[in-house]
Amino acid sequence: MKIHPMWRNYPLVEPELEQVLTLIDKNITTNNAPVRDAILKMINAGGKLLRPAYCLLFSQFKPVDRHKMIALAAAVETLHTATLIHDDIIDEADVRRGQPSIQATFGQDTAVYAGDYLFTVCFKLLAGYASDLRSVQQDGKHMEAILNGELDQMATRYNLDITIDQYLTQISGKTGQLFALSSFLGAYESGNSLHFARNAQTIGLNIGIAFQLLDDILDYTATSAQFGKPVQEDMRQGVYSAPLILALHDDSDDFIPYLSKRSQMTPDDAQAVDQLVRQHGGIDQAQTLARNYTDTALAAIHKLPDVPVRATLEELTSTLLNRQS
Amino acid sequence: MKIHPMWRNYPLVEPELEQVLTLIDKNITTNNAPVRDAILKMINAGGKLLRPAYCLLFSQFKPVDRHKMIALAAAVETLHTATLIHDDIIDEADVRRGQPSIQATFGQDTAVYAGDYLFTVCFKLLAGYASDLRSVQQDGKHMEAILNGELDQMATRYNLDITIDQYLTQISGKTGQLFALSSFLGAYESGNSLHFARNAQTIGLNIGIAFQLLDDILDYTATSAQFGKPVQEDMRQGVYSAPLILALHDDSDDFIPYLSKRSQMTPDDAQAVDQLVRQHGGIDQAQTLARNYTDTALAAIHKLPDVPVRATLEELTSTLLNRQS
Repeated sequence: MKIHPMWRNYPLVEPELEQVLTLIDKNITTNNAPVRDAILKMINAGGKLLRPAYCLLFSQFKPVDRHKMIALAAAVETLHTATLIHDDIIDEADVRRGQPSIQATFGQDTAVYAGDYLFTVCFKLLAGYASDLRSVQQDGKHMEAILNGELDQMATRYNLDITIDQYLTQISGKTGQLFALSSFLGAYESGNSLHFARNAQTIGLNIGIAFQLLDDILDYTATSAQFGKPVQEDMRQGVYSAPLILALHDDSDDFIPYLSKRSQMTPDDAQAVDQLVRQHGGIDQAQTLARNYTDTALAAIHKLPDVPVRATLEELTSTLLNRQS
Repeated sequence: MKIHPMWRNYPLVEPELEQVLTLIDKNITTNNAPVRDAILKMINAGGKLLRPAYCLLFSQFKPVDRHKMIALAAAVETLHTATLIHDDIIDEADVRRGQPSIQATFGQDTAVYAGDYLFTVCFKLLAGYASDLRSVQQDGKHMEAILNGELDQMATRYNLDITIDQYLTQISGKTGQLFALSSFLGAYESGNSLHFARNAQTIGLNIGIAFQLLDDILDYTATSAQFGKPVQEDMRQGVYSAPLILALHDDSDDFIPYLSKRSQMTPDDAQAVDQLVRQHGGIDQAQTLARNYTDTALAAIHKLPDVPVRATLEELTSTLLNRQS
């Protein structure tokens, strides 16, 4: 099991993340070779493992059975992977994590079942290791919120009037909620008070929102070689993110000739929209917004008890939310 | 909410089944109109509600909060519906319960998410109403077994050497396990001993296997007007059921010229296979097998405590497993 090299800088969590991958591998017990291969390929494709990392870090404020926390961290990564696989079906995505997507490689049948299979593994891990039903109920609420985020995004496709609040609600669902759940589980299941766990949950939510905002900004600001594919594809599919939404709010008329072509948009159309987004201050405003969520998260982390893991949480969060690629 | 007219004969369970549908409806809270419409259409398409019925009946051996049991019965029907929706994507089915399938009506995107949404509703209901984590763990195991049944079926497509044991393992997974879970939940969550609940689980498993065997037999023996569509489609997709598998075991050479055409099989080829299945005793043998599972289930029900619900369980099971259509 190989994990992302970034974790070499985080010795408090690196060895446990390796155990997370090993445990997920051990739980993929289906005899169905394509589904098994598809899942393992996805799990080992070098995802950043951020969600299990936050779960593990928030569980280090109290001494606790580490195997239990590794299992719960594995549960959140499993859920994350399940949603990625199903999202790729929806988006008809051919590429994921730089490799052909599961549906492109193994077909749609395998992709549907591989996602479903991972949901059941997640369910089994949560039910098997959570300390009480309250925690499992919390999981159910988060899962519903994650899915509602995806569904809202689907429902507002091609909507030029989408507000930044609608967008924030969507990313709060599709990305924020899983960071929130990971942080909550880590804190609550390691024996902290519900008050502490709710605080961790809010920190996780803000990190997740800032993370998604930054991802969406980087789609525009990454070097021109990288630019294009994701944003162009999103534009064609009518999925508009913060920079574009904020620019549209400044003046939508300029954009209409390009965006109204919907799935027929050409690479030149996308480049034109990209220029307009910059001219109308979409990127600057989105960066300000991301900065707000980042600052809120970092300030809250700084108020946590001064144990070694706090510095790691600060460093990881700061690095993650100030990255340039 | 309209339920199947068959339930008029079962006053112990009819009103509660209506409440099951109402509760599912109440839990579909997504704002996404297509997903909501798709799910409600499926839920209200007149499915037989057998799984929640067994959950409710097995919960009537002890006095218990009926609302709790209705919620758990809703959870199993929700899980069942989720698997139907995703199976239709795999099978590229255009028709389900006599109506256009969700993916045919609303598209594949909505079908993937509608299934996922129902999984989260199931999870929420189970976590919200189960009395302890043991019960939720049990759910996880059953869900995995259900999916493994589907996956095994996918993996053995077009396999002329498939054994009857492999087939029985598959239907034990894809159909038996959900009947088993429903019966277990009803018995265990209403305060019976684990021993009683395990007995209910085994009864449910045998009912589920007999039910699927009978379904697969009826695909062959139903009147010629009904014959064709399901069996022909299954043959073309390489999904072989008990009558064909047992006949193949008698002599597979006769079948090869037809089955080797795989997805290119014509209606005439399918009719020829149908004739061969009869000649080689496939239907008779499958009926004997179904009879064994039915008898085992009925004998075990007869040994249950003599309270009013026992007679209902006997009558329902006997009617269900002796039906001609």
